[in-house]
Amino acid sequence: MYDAERIHAILDAAYVCHVGFAIDGQPYVIPTAFGRVGNLVFIHGSAASRMLRSLAQGVAVCVTMTLIDGLVLARSAFRHSMNYRSVVILGTARLVTDPSEKLEALRCFTNHVVPGRWEEVRQPNHKEMLSTSVLALPLDEASAKVRSGPPLDIEDDWSLPVWAGVVPVQTQFGEPIPDSHVSPGVPVVDKSRFTR
Amino acid sequence: MYDAERIHAILDAAYVCHVGFAIDGQPYVIPTAFGRVGNLVFIHGSAASRMLRSLAQGVAVCVTMTLIDGLVLARSAFRHSMNYRSVVILGTARLVTDPSEKLEALRCFTNHVVPGRWEEVRQPNHKEMLSTSVLALPLDEASAKVRSGPPLDIEDDWSLPVWAGVVPVQTQFGEPIPDSHVSPGVPVVDKSRFTR
Repeated sequence: MYDAERIHAILDAAYVCHVGFAIDGQPYVIPTAFGRVGNLVFIHGSAASRMLRSLAQGVAVCVTMTLIDGLVLARSAFRHSMNYRSVVILGTARLVTDPSEKLEALRCFTNHVVPGRWEEVRQPNHKEMLSTSVLALPLDEASAKVRSGPPLDIEDDWSLPVWAGVVPVQTQFGEPIPDSHVSPGVPVVDKSRFTR
Repeated sequence: MYDAERIHAILDAAYVCHVGFAIDGQPYVIPTAFGRVGNLVFIHGSAASRMLRSLAQGVAVCVTMTLIDGLVLARSAFRHSMNYRSVVILGTARLVTDPSEKLEALRCFTNHVVPGRWEEVRQPNHKEMLSTSVLALPLDEASAKVRSGPPLDIEDDWSLPVWAGVVPVQTQFGEPIPDSHVSPGVPVVDKSRFTR
């Protein structure tokens, strides 16, 4: 599926992406944080430092986001599956060098995980800005794949004495664990802010 | 980290992997099921069909498993992070052609998700075996990365009036949803079997 609305919804629900790139024919797949602004995905360059060191210009990448929604248990081994939503983006990533675009990308990383967080915390100073690298990738060549619903057993297997169906898989948040420096009276972060 | 015990533990806790390969310099990253037997990872070939069609011989791949354990909320945007465990495997995948090794790989896929499931369900017939392709990849060049613990704010930020700490991220299973053909009296699958 190629509609932007569906692709955006999957991206906005994912916490990390997997960035693929190749150096001398050897592929690398690195998990990293990301954010989206309109038709542009920003990926965290630290994960791609190896790539960035070797390639100053644009680089062919594949960025994939995957959400697991359920275990699909069938009556035959062959029909076992998973329910999932995924997006695969192909394209050429460019290094973000413009300071205001870079700041926007960093805002977008932070608020992707907890909306509004950027506005509450100390924003990056000059040194922090320099030590972060950011890549931008347009969503021009992106496709979504979705599997949902029950297993698709063949009729001959229906009578087998084994349970079949879907076990929903959900992401759950535990009780927030404060670090040892939280000032008195500061309220704990509200879970509803990061629940997808 | 390179110790086998830690790498195996991360693999055994993950439901999917991301397989990276390159064709003519364009990388692809595809989420897919996998299983592990000792020092060997089996990956589902359907995800790599594009690769398999173009390459009959061994192919350079990178296979990455990622588990998100927590959102790390700091007092500065720059120090935000995630707690995670990941494994990156580099190597050359080979197509599994030996029928008994292929059957073992399929058993391993099924039991990776629900231990013991293979022994309960109908095993693949000849046609199903032929329509599945499986790749094998040794864990010879595998490394694990783990981040855990609280945010690492600089001391100057400790007094900022913002909550900081870790929000644990967990995978939870919903109530199993039977399909419309479960025979009367068949017990629902026990959640403890797939809880990691």
